[in-house]
Amino acid sequence: MTPHLPAPRPVYRREDLRALLDPAVIAIVGASARGGSFGERTARNLSGFAGRLHLVNPRYDGIGDQPCHPSLAALPEVPDLVVAATPMEACEGVVRDCVAAGVRGLILYAAGFAETGRPERVALQHRLVAMAREGGLRLLGPNCIGVVDYVRRAEISFVALPRPASPPVRPALGIVSQSGNLGFALAQAVEAGAQVGRVLTCGNSGDVDVADLVAALAEDPACSAIALLFEGMADPARLLEAAAIAWEHDKPIVVHKLGTGEQGAAAAMSHTGSLAGSEAVYRAAFQRAGMVLSESFEGLLELASFLAKAPAPRAAGVAVVSTSGGAAIMAADRAEARGVALPQPGPEAQAVLSARIPEFGSARNPCDVTAQVLNDPGSLQDCIGALLGDPAYGTLVVPNGFAYDVATPRFRMMGELAARYGKVACVVWTTQWLEGPGAREAEGEERVALFRSMDRCMAAIAAWQARHERRCAGPVMATRLAPPGAREAAARLLDQASGAVLTEREAKAVLAAYGVPVVAETLATGAEEAVAAADAAGYPVVLKVESPALPHKTEAGVIRLGLAGPEAVRAAFAEVMANARRAAPGAPIHGVLVQPMVPAGIEVVVGARRDPLFGPTVLVGMGGILVELLRDTAVALAPVSHGEARAMLAGLRGARLLSGFRNLPAVDLDALAGVVQRVSELAADHAGRIAEIDVNPVIAAGARLVAVDALIGLSPAPPHG
Amino acid sequence: MTPHLPAPRPVYRREDLRALLDPAVIAIVGASARGGSFGERTARNLSGFAGRLHLVNPRYDGIGDQPCHPSLAALPEVPDLVVAATPMEACEGVVRDCVAAGVRGLILYAAGFAETGRPERVALQHRLVAMAREGGLRLLGPNCIGVVDYVRRAEISFVALPRPASPPVRPALGIVSQSGNLGFALAQAVEAGAQVGRVLTCGNSGDVDVADLVAALAEDPACSAIALLFEGMADPARLLEAAAIAWEHDKPIVVHKLGTGEQGAAAAMSHTGSLAGSEAVYRAAFQRAGMVLSESFEGLLELASFLAKAPAPRAAGVAVVSTSGGAAIMAADRAEARGVALPQPGPEAQAVLSARIPEFGSARNPCDVTAQVLNDPGSLQDCIGALLGDPAYGTLVVPNGFAYDVATPRFRMMGELAARYGKVACVVWTTQWLEGPGAREAEGEERVALFRSMDRCMAAIAAWQARHERRCAGPVMATRLAPPGAREAAARLLDQASGAVLTEREAKAVLAAYGVPVVAETLATGAEEAVAAADAAGYPVVLKVESPALPHKTEAGVIRLGLAGPEAVRAAFAEVMANARRAAPGAPIHGVLVQPMVPAGIEVVVGARRDPLFGPTVLVGMGGILVELLRDTAVALAPVSHGEARAMLAGLRGARLLSGFRNLPAVDLDALAGVVQRVSELAADHAGRIAEIDVNPVIAAGARLVAVDALIGLSPAPPHG
Repeated sequence: MTPHLPAPRPVYRREDLRALLDPAVIAIVGASARGGSFGERTARNLSGFAGRLHLVNPRYDGIGDQPCHPSLAALPEVPDLVVAATPMEACEGVVRDCVAAGVRGLILYAAGFAETGRPERVALQHRLVAMAREGGLRLLGPNCIGVVDYVRRAEISFVALPRPASPPVRPALGIVSQSGNLGFALAQAVEAGAQVGRVLTCGNSGDVDVADLVAALAEDPACSAIALLFEGMADPARLLEAAAIAWEHDKPIVVHKLGTGEQGAAAAMSHTGSLAGSEAVYRAAFQRAGMVLSESFEGLLELASFLAKAPAPRAAGVAVVSTSGGAAIMAADRAEARGVALPQPGPEAQAVLSARIPEFGSARNPCDVTAQVLNDPGSLQDCIGALLGDPAYGTLVVPNGFAYDVATPRFRMMGELAARYGKVACVVWTTQWLEGPGAREAEGEERVALFRSMDRCMAAIAAWQARHERRCAGPVMATRLAPPGAREAAARLLDQASGAVLTEREAKAVLAAYGVPVVAETLATGAEEAVAAADAAGYPVVLKVESPALPHKTEAGVIRLGLAGPEAVRAAFAEVMANARRAAPGAPIHGVLVQPMVPAGIEVVVGARRDPLFGPTVLVGMGGILVELLRDTAVALAPVSHGEARAMLAGLRGARLLSGFRNLPAVDLDALAGVVQRVSELAADHAGRIAEIDVNPVIAAGARLVAVDALIGLSPAPPHG
Repeated sequence: MTPHLPAPRPVYRREDLRALLDPAVIAIVGASARGGSFGERTARNLSGFAGRLHLVNPRYDGIGDQPCHPSLAALPEVPDLVVAATPMEACEGVVRDCVAAGVRGLILYAAGFAETGRPERVALQHRLVAMAREGGLRLLGPNCIGVVDYVRRAEISFVALPRPASPPVRPALGIVSQSGNLGFALAQAVEAGAQVGRVLTCGNSGDVDVADLVAALAEDPACSAIALLFEGMADPARLLEAAAIAWEHDKPIVVHKLGTGEQGAAAAMSHTGSLAGSEAVYRAAFQRAGMVLSESFEGLLELASFLAKAPAPRAAGVAVVSTSGGAAIMAADRAEARGVALPQPGPEAQAVLSARIPEFGSARNPCDVTAQVLNDPGSLQDCIGALLGDPAYGTLVVPNGFAYDVATPRFRMMGELAARYGKVACVVWTTQWLEGPGAREAEGEERVALFRSMDRCMAAIAAWQARHERRCAGPVMATRLAPPGAREAAARLLDQASGAVLTEREAKAVLAAYGVPVVAETLATGAEEAVAAADAAGYPVVLKVESPALPHKTEAGVIRLGLAGPEAVRAAFAEVMANARRAAPGAPIHGVLVQPMVPAGIEVVVGARRDPLFGPTVLVGMGGILVELLRDTAVALAPVSHGEARAMLAGLRGARLLSGFRNLPAVDLDALAGVVQRVSELAADHAGRIAEIDVNPVIAAGARLVAVDALIGLSPAPPHG
């Protein structure tokens, strides 16, 4: 169900959402004395609120020992935020009253709006949102389960809320979720010591949505990192805008996306009323925006917490210190799988390890200090100190298999050593007593990150290193490759196109305008003209009939390859023209293209598509069987930089083919990346007109790159905007 | 470090290990009054032991209120089991005393033996083991951290031990681990309610090893399923033997293997003194033995626990009931990724869902009953009952995002409904309060399985379904494909081989004896003989020089393809002979093979290797770029059945190529599987002599399959056994 979409708007900033997110005064409309009612539960959850709380319900004079007011207008002050614990039918009146009273923030719990898919309910939601926006009222919901600020104890919800034993150490994590239930499922980690400052859920996203909430947290100095649980949205470019704000503030965003499968995506569309974009494009967009992807839901919070605690890596190497040979093996396995380097220590650290580790352990990285540490805890501390102090290591991984030696202040010791060297220590909780003694202490240490999976720990370290490299590289250079005037030249060629799908020759002319190397060709209208063209091109040659009615030339039998001389060209000309007339009787035939045969090379496919959500994208893949059979392609938002195009090529499973396979020379990767970049610039420049580009194949051998066939499809509808 | 390996032996059975695993009388040698000593800790851990415990140490008359005896000989009775809390140096004496006293079981804690890699320590370990075996004493260790029986409270270790709040519901899980630390890391799940009966770790595996322990648990009716943490062993065939016993008893074994990467495997070899086999062969062997693989360490115990609780599936469909739209999406995503079907309910269940689920939820599978369940818990129960009662569903998945409504006896209700319909219910603990209220109750339900990852839940369901299919299919039919007399014919051909690497013609003759279709060929020693052979074969033909000195024919320039007539054959003959003489001056040249050109088809590679641990294996892969670039191959232990060969083909990433690609007809999969099976029989029959077979390529098109080149390499050493 896709409701009518409001026009795109820039994200709200922290200042716009201050009444909603940092209220000094809250009013509950629909307050109630009935136990278990939404109003009663909300008041109970807000019992520790650091600001002022008012109750509104004409049916009560007071609830418990609190006064209750008949209306918003009757309150002694204008609340910053109203929480409406009212049924769906009453919401329109609440919005009206809020606007009339000058309230700036509103949360609507009630369900039954756009998420039902019923047109009148969609319309009702839109009416409420329009009214709120006109009145300067920021609205969260409807169908919103609530939001929590653990620092100021603004714990607003009608469900039982997770509650940390003590307020979070600031700055703390911010959780943003489209799913209310899963947002609070994540937040329940606070019961076990996770440092969460805020939980923000947005229900139907009628007005304020995840992009706004992410942007607000990005600018919030009390937020250390953002954990985002995302399903989908109609205008995800706004999320990228929020991500850019977070990048500017060097605030990590870790995202886990639901709706990745076909069934899940369909369910997500009906759940949130959003459009489904291609999963690959989502990933590409998130990565470009500097967001870190969490493969799993269960790893989302620990990855965000790690990035919140970890200073920039000082070295790419990682040390492992284990009290167990098995755990050391596990660390080596997962490091290798995730591409994390475990180099050997320098001489100083090595001397400490050699002195401290018994002969039945391992004094190399990964180190096995053995269970002897039970008798001599000092040796573990010495080894950890030596490795954290070694400049070869950016971080230390310590598997923790026993939750019993609580007397050992092990995590405090690790945290202090890590802080001394400006690093972070990673504890991998291999004990399956998941919240056993010590876990809370590890969570609470500023320089200790806790993982409950060795694989997720190594993946997190790899993501941290990649994020750092990206930050060091600075902003992506937007050096354009297309020659000056390319945009205008291509626009003229598109204006003159013979149909909605350009002929091969028309498409190649457009690509050539952007500097993509295309095979030379001549259109011949008679056999002798074809021979003359072939003589000029040099044998062997290829003949292809050009007709807008025959886009699929191979199937129509209107291509002949490898023609070795004039006689062959004459015979082939007659044959392909006859086949063309048979395949498309009466259709216009422009003539026959004569091209030189391009010698063998690696076949690469370069293309572009307009994604319904993200706009123009560019694609590159290994041609032939790899792309047809294994869908071995890389996608990015267009246009791409040179570096991005190189990274796309490097990410292909068949990338090894490009560096010289069998007897073929290594492909000039800079030149090939240049083709990808030029096609991406073409797609981006003409996003309103071009729906699809297929350059298939580009034949590559060494520095020789030639596009031998191409297709450009135009949009059926007039361009937007 | 690979110590000298004792000769393979059959696994010990439960009866052999009774003194070790079910002792009525235990003695601690090296008992101690010193707090923190191994002896003192062991006595403390054994304080709840249901049998009789004796202390032995000549330095004490008594420890606490317990008498202490000067020696084993001085005890009032012969203990079943001795636990030696003594240093390495004292172990030889302990073994001698045990044998002299007629003790049947011994656990050695002491480290510093074979795991150090020092030859004298390896020899010491072997001496101890030989002495024990000769004396009928079963020995666990040395370097063993301990074993636990939670039912009889035989909690034997020198480390602090996990302790369940109440004894496990029987039958309960058995944990077997090569790593002591990680074995007890798994066992600590009992602190949070996991139902574990035994924890068995084996240290250096001097005598008793993981295979023996698995076999003993397979025969133990108190064990519901086995969770095995495995690193590697010198003779893994014994583990397969143990797995066969477990299969016979329909007792699930779930295995997680460490040492999967190169670094990890190297660490595992030095840690356990075992050999490293190929990871792919390990997986193939485990699967053939009916073991279930756990991809992750953290999912090992929950997968074993699920299989222990789940009766055989009554249907392949799975229903999802969620109180959260987001969790329903997550379930759909992961089900799709793991190949689990979520069909729609039948009319009866549908009627219940439609009546009970509000309009803003989803009354389809996956169901979103919404947070309304807070106000009406009966609706959740009705939906769960309707879906568990629907014959379309084998199990039900229920995400649990809130750990707060403990008053709701939700898990008891699910367990009862599941039991009523002979099914199991799966709870996915999406709340990140990992041990929040309710988790222990869910663990304790006999028909409720608890998962802390939706992905692992769906993977477990898929594994459960696959195990059931395998059991229904019955034992693998060992119908042999090779013709009668093939073994003897091939043995003769191998005897007559011209060298350690057979010539192409010799190799094909061996393959032909097993019924593998090979291209027809004639050896010609002169040009006119070659022309006559070509005339007989039909043009075009291929010429290849045959010389034992030229195994790499393409590189030596001694192959010519596509020769269209007698003149071309004559010219090519002269050319390849000249090249051969140039490439290997003075080497014997048998002549030139003349073969008809085989028309185009899909290229497949079939091969065999002798694995250092598992013996003969067979391999199949898609030829050309897929195998060279992507290593797209499937491996199995040889010989394979027809069904196994078909499954290997189906598992290839490029499998789609076989079902008709571009203009090629679909390959006859039964015929191709037949080639794989025949090669596997050849490899298995001559395991002592054949080191390697490469049939590359087999060209396949429809029912036409021809091996056009082949290589067989013989073992350098004389055959074993």
